[in-house]
Amino acid sequence: METAIVADEVKVAPFVKEMVRQLRALDSYGSYDGWSDDRVLEPLILTKARKAEIPVVGDPDEVTLSRVKAFYNAVAVRVEATTKLLTVPLVHLSHEGFGRALVSVGRLIVVDRTLRDVHRFGFASIEKLEAEGDKIVRSAVEMIERYPSVANH
Amino acid sequence: METAIVADEVKVAPFVKEMVRQLRALDSYGSYDGWSDDRVLEPLILTKARKAEIPVVGDPDEVTLSRVKAFYNAVAVRVEATTKLLTVPLVHLSHEGFGRALVSVGRLIVVDRTLRDVHRFGFASIEKLEAEGDKIVRSAVEMIERYPSVANH
Repeated sequence: METAIVADEVKVAPFVKEMVRQLRALDSYGSYDGWSDDRVLEPLILTKARKAEIPVVGDPDEVTLSRVKAFYNAVAVRVEATTKLLTVPLVHLSHEGFGRALVSVGRLIVVDRTLRDVHRFGFASIEKLEAEGDKIVRSAVEMIERYPSVANH
Repeated sequence: METAIVADEVKVAPFVKEMVRQLRALDSYGSYDGWSDDRVLEPLILTKARKAEIPVVGDPDEVTLSRVKAFYNAVAVRVEATTKLLTVPLVHLSHEGFGRALVSVGRLIVVDRTLRDVHRFGFASIEKLEAEGDKIVRSAVEMIERYPSVANH
């Protein structure tokens, strides 16, 4: 059963919860209407076997790109929730799944990641999604604590 | 004579010179081969009469977009020349000529501009192009002087 990979205890994790919210927010065609959170998250979980099925080189489709955007939107919202400062996410693709993801607060770049292989965007498990998202959020909050005047510029 | 709008004394201005270099660098089809600097710059000069000919709403074409990129590339190069720090320009279009132009140095955003009406990108005169470019470069350099640890992060 594909959707059983999402363990109940992790679904209450704050980053994963926000990620579900952001995925639903970007679902402009209503494809997720009536879907459980499990089912919405499920395409993001790339087990080894699943990853092996995706070609190494490829152009990301709109749906995959919207998942990357949802991820950085979730990061931005979680940073905002912690710091009460306005965050601006930006996912910029240059070519064939390469690009740059930024989250800025004032004049401070709190997240700056090179994107590669966007068509293979995913996480080995829901636990990994929570851990990775949470790690980026915490590092962003630390940047703001370190340079508050730039974040408030 | 259309190309006479570029006055000789301004062509030696550092920002305009860099702008010509960047426009030529982005000319991947070799359209500017054999063109004078005047002729390369000329489409960027939007006098009132010319601006009136461009529709208010429109999608920017590739050539217009490459001019916007050339402008922020030139800003980035001029900031780099002054500060000796690595700069990263990013021009991100979201929809119908709206977007955001950034130049970052380390974790510092030294230029952050909202883009509007990209299909009407241009300057009233070469002097205005030099003045506007130079103003943005100086403001970026001031940001770096103010927050050197973030720029070097």
